[in-house]
Amino acid sequence: MAIINLSLLLPILLLALSLSVVFAVDPSTLQDFCVTAPISQGTSICKDPKLVEANDFFFSGLHLAGNTSNPVGSKVTPVFASQLPGLNTLGISLARIDIAPWGVNPPHLHPRATEILTVLEGTLEVGFITSNPENRHFTKNLQKGDVFVFPIGLIHYQRNIGYDNVVAIAALSSQNPGVITIGNAVFGATPVISSGVLVKAFQLDRTVINYLQSKF
Amino acid sequence: MAIINLSLLLPILLLALSLSVVFAVDPSTLQDFCVTAPISQGTSICKDPKLVEANDFFFSGLHLAGNTSNPVGSKVTPVFASQLPGLNTLGISLARIDIAPWGVNPPHLHPRATEILTVLEGTLEVGFITSNPENRHFTKNLQKGDVFVFPIGLIHYQRNIGYDNVVAIAALSSQNPGVITIGNAVFGATPVISSGVLVKAFQLDRTVINYLQSKF
Amino acid sequence: MAIINLSLLLPILLLALSLSVVFAVDPSTLQDFCVTAPISQGTSICKDPKLVEANDFFFSGLHLAGNTSNPVGSKVTPVFASQLPGLNTLGISLARIDIAPWGVNPPHLHPRATEILTVLEGTLEVGFITSNPENRHFTKNLQKGDVFVFPIGLIHYQRNIGYDNVVAIAALSSQNPGVITIGNAVFGATPVISSGVLVKAFQLDRTVINYLQSKF
Amino acid sequence: MAIINLSLLLPILLLALSLSVVFAVDPSTLQDFCVTAPISQGTSICKDPKLVEANDFFFSGLHLAGNTSNPVGSKVTPVFASQLPGLNTLGISLARIDIAPWGVNPPHLHPRATEILTVLEGTLEVGFITSNPENRHFTKNLQKGDVFVFPIGLIHYQRNIGYDNVVAIAALSSQNPGVITIGNAVFGATPVISSGVLVKAFQLDRTVINYLQSKF
Amino acid sequence: MAIINLSLLLPILLLALSLSVVFAVDPSTLQDFCVTAPISQGTSICKDPKLVEANDFFFSGLHLAGNTSNPVGSKVTPVFASQLPGLNTLGISLARIDIAPWGVNPPHLHPRATEILTVLEGTLEVGFITSNPENRHFTKNLQKGDVFVFPIGLIHYQRNIGYDNVVAIAALSSQNPGVITIGNAVFGATPVISSGVLVKAFQLDRTVINYLQSKF
Amino acid sequence: MAIINLSLLLPILLLALSLSVVFAVDPSTLQDFCVTAPISQGTSICKDPKLVEANDFFFSGLHLAGNTSNPVGSKVTPVFASQLPGLNTLGISLARIDIAPWGVNPPHLHPRATEILTVLEGTLEVGFITSNPENRHFTKNLQKGDVFVFPIGLIHYQRNIGYDNVVAIAALSSQNPGVITIGNAVFGATPVISSGVLVKAFQLDRTVINYLQSKF
Repeated sequence: MAIINLSLLLPILLLALSLSVVFAVDPSTLQDFCVTAPISQGTSICKDPKLVEANDFFFSGLHLAGNTSNPVGSKVTPVFASQLPGLNTLGISLARIDIAPWGVNPPHLHPRATEILTVLEGTLEVGFITSNPENRHFTKNLQKGDVFVFPIGLIHYQRNIGYDNVVAIAALSSQNPGVITIGNAVFGATPVISSGVLVKAFQLDRTVINYLQSKF
Repeated sequence: MAIINLSLLLPILLLALSLSVVFAVDPSTLQDFCVTAPISQGTSICKDPKLVEANDFFFSGLHLAGNTSNPVGSKVTPVFASQLPGLNTLGISLARIDIAPWGVNPPHLHPRATEILTVLEGTLEVGFITSNPENRHFTKNLQKGDVFVFPIGLIHYQRNIGYDNVVAIAALSSQNPGVITIGNAVFGATPVISSGVLVKAFQLDRTVINYLQSKF
Repeated sequence: MAIINLSLLLPILLLALSLSVVFAVDPSTLQDFCVTAPISQGTSICKDPKLVEANDFFFSGLHLAGNTSNPVGSKVTPVFASQLPGLNTLGISLARIDIAPWGVNPPHLHPRATEILTVLEGTLEVGFITSNPENRHFTKNLQKGDVFVFPIGLIHYQRNIGYDNVVAIAALSSQNPGVITIGNAVFGATPVISSGVLVKAFQLDRTVINYLQSKF
Repeated sequence: MAIINLSLLLPILLLALSLSVVFAVDPSTLQDFCVTAPISQGTSICKDPKLVEANDFFFSGLHLAGNTSNPVGSKVTPVFASQLPGLNTLGISLARIDIAPWGVNPPHLHPRATEILTVLEGTLEVGFITSNPENRHFTKNLQKGDVFVFPIGLIHYQRNIGYDNVVAIAALSSQNPGVITIGNAVFGATPVISSGVLVKAFQLDRTVINYLQSKF
Repeated sequence: MAIINLSLLLPILLLALSLSVVFAVDPSTLQDFCVTAPISQGTSICKDPKLVEANDFFFSGLHLAGNTSNPVGSKVTPVFASQLPGLNTLGISLARIDIAPWGVNPPHLHPRATEILTVLEGTLEVGFITSNPENRHFTKNLQKGDVFVFPIGLIHYQRNIGYDNVVAIAALSSQNPGVITIGNAVFGATPVISSGVLVKAFQLDRTVINYLQSKF
Repeated sequence: MAIINLSLLLPILLLALSLSVVFAVDPSTLQDFCVTAPISQGTSICKDPKLVEANDFFFSGLHLAGNTSNPVGSKVTPVFASQLPGLNTLGISLARIDIAPWGVNPPHLHPRATEILTVLEGTLEVGFITSNPENRHFTKNLQKGDVFVFPIGLIHYQRNIGYDNVVAIAALSSQNPGVITIGNAVFGATPVISSGVLVKAFQLDRTVINYLQSKF
């Protein structure tokens, strides 16, 4: 039995274990699938195909309503690769959207995905805004069975304009689409953006900026 | 006013008009969107952005049940770029799947897309098979609210195993995923594949092959 | 000489001429270059390689300061594929950024590009914010010769924190990166977003929302 | 010398060693090459470039005939990234195809590659079938020196229609194209697909389905 | 019958007809195939699928030896998308290489493709050189049935080191790989590169540079 | 405390530590960023996002002139992913180019990137050469503020044709564009290319080839 000086190896092993998600791209595949195999603190690579099972491609619970008791009156339940490891490398994911009457899913964007939304229940006002210099606003009122597309990277929102809850399914063209809620990112960043930047950018009083930063 | 010999130009114009879909790839985008602008017999390029309107990103009718009165007892209603022109270049699409009790959506594959399926109503047996040499069969019974993934290019199927109709929404990672139903492609091709090829490949009697070819 | 009824062909030709940008993707190339060949109202495809000349790959004037006499005190001069047709299909572009003392390049994002910025003159505070749920703010003060990276799709800004003008060169990983200035898109969209959506989303008084909408 | 409790580290190390192929995409490259470096039970990443040698880009034996003594009378010899590690990340591979007189390479498809085939010896009937709804069958008889293309994801086959052995070289547009032989996947999956699904899908007697399942 | 002023339309039509290849990218596909439909002076888009036939996927003559009676003693016969229109958008192509005894296929590179070469006849010395700063030279002598890989964008060469003709098949990972023969590009460009640049770059006498420029 | 036989684990660990760069592709991203986390001898994966800081996106010193005291009179200072780890997976990088009067940046190419160059100081002759068979030479004299594009994979060069130093910033469409200097790769490879190959390819005396090989 060899006795070995581990003091040299250990820091390297611990560093390795502190690293995170390995896959940085999602276009085309190199094998039938590559189920995420999470290792304790982060590193994830393909699970041994022999150990993959049907449950790796399965997620349940999308029939359950999200809790919309919050200031904006809406809740998004994601089914991304972190929730459904079989999605890894496959370039698609889902989310369930619940919106209480007059609630909104506030202006946000997905930096890595187009969204295609299907209304299952309720009446929904939706809209997206194009990039500079036009900043055109495309908007539409949707009913049950209606489908609408929000192109990748554009700011969009949804509002329940009926008397019943809205339920919608959104499909997204990435396994990890990302979400940037405008208000949170601009006024709720950690650490905060200097109010000087925001005062100049939005031409608002420092009081309003401070109020906004306290809200988010 | 110039009078010009059109007999040289016309054949070229007519040839141009008989050509079809211009966009051959779907990865990343070069503008906010590129709504398909169909020209009579085929050529399609981006519609002038100034003429694009909210309806170009809209599709309605996905709440309506498909007609399952056919031998396999199922019906797929596609919402691909040909049905929803705003999807062009955006790499995603949808379909509604209706299956009558004990009906099947027969073994098929999508050459250009992964599918992620959500069960809205009913009880569904689903499965997919991996490539050679393992040809492993992953299968699962799904209830309302369950989600399952069928990786790109793999043969898969669904079967209603309950007493009520199944309704499911499938999202697909391409604007034009393509569908190859195995039975139709192998036994129902036009013109037919020589029965000699099929007899040898499937080690079946010529009678059975001929029967299959008459069915599809 | 054939005399031909043009009344059938003309509408098709005119439709064709009203269409816009053909190239919807930018990853890899299929020829040495594909210089944009603009046709009157939009359609653009590769210019005949025999007619391509060195000037198609050339742009001049990036040594000239932009005019920063505007409320935010900054000016961006783009060198995208629309300004430099030789960039078409090649996946890269540039911009010159001028910022007057205490001016800002307001929070914005590029839906299709990472930005790498080099400071040529002056002292610059820069920052970007990551996506939900962390919304982490990475910020740094830069001097002449410093370089900073703003990852694709993330909100970022720059502010001149010195007493002299700032001059910077930004390189972007797309021929047409797109720019979404948050304030303009959210408060200055055409037509405007219902103030109801914004009141709920930002938890602000309708008066403030109306004020913001009048500013942008 | 530090004495360390390995009982915490070992499970993590063993899990790491049970994981498989790291590379999940193949489009463009980030270095001159990335030769696969297999680690015992699976994980593979780029071999240290300093240790790479000419033999990593080399494979021999493609002049040797494959053994066609099997029910279908054909044999495919792959030169994919698993056989030739230098192909990793480079998006191309090869195969030699041997077919005895009247043998077939049965209907199959490559989920991740287009195939371009060159006949070196013999006379070959080839064909492929397009996707739904047309399922058009393109077929051609080939001689020595003839080349034919099978587009990505479409079902295709080859049959020797001469009196001599056929030898062909197929090039494929992926380092790991994948092969799905229709008969094996549908009737020979492990575990088997319920005969109920196949009876309904192919409108065949349960006896014929059972016979087919016993064959594959 | 409408009489219309064509003098406005004609220049636009003629411009359109002078444009060239439309497809600038080749990654993934959006339909089963997109056969190139050449229009007189260049523009090419997908041929109407209904008019596509098996011959669009077919090329013949690769069994015929190329003529190696030239200073370098070698000849390459390409089967790219311009020779085989069915290859359009499919990301792969072929070439036959003939080299007379002691002839060379001079140092060159393919800007858009990896090459995988199979020796059909003869004995071949092959090599490629990596990028700066190592410029490592990987070299190998090949016999019949040997396969070698030349990674995308790297300079490589082949030399017949036997007494018989060499015949090889090269597969390339692009429908239009491009070829840059170093000698021709550096010393035979049109118009020539100033000899001042080459004298400085290669630290050679102006006489040798002039001699080289006269040769290519 | 378990005592474990490390003699089995160690070789595997050491092999793992001798491997290099994990990321082989750069197209689209799967998370906001993936900062390179170098592990001793090579393996690099995403740094734990929680440990990422602003400095990971920062590089300084591009205002400092490179040392041009060398035979070609020029110096390139790279800011690639190896110098600026935050660039990993983001598809862009920079370089500063210094050229003394009458110095040249010798003919070279970037196998993985298009270059867009901005002149900050001085007067510069630039050129690139297209692929076979045309080998067209596009050339232009540039002044301060001028911009020029060198398409991916094509041979190009720059020469200072003024009396002052030239300073230019080049942006490149890859995080690791690669550089192949023609002279170094052809005449300075390690080990050298047989002079027989070069004599035949360049139709030069063995003496000149030997002289060139001694120079590089």
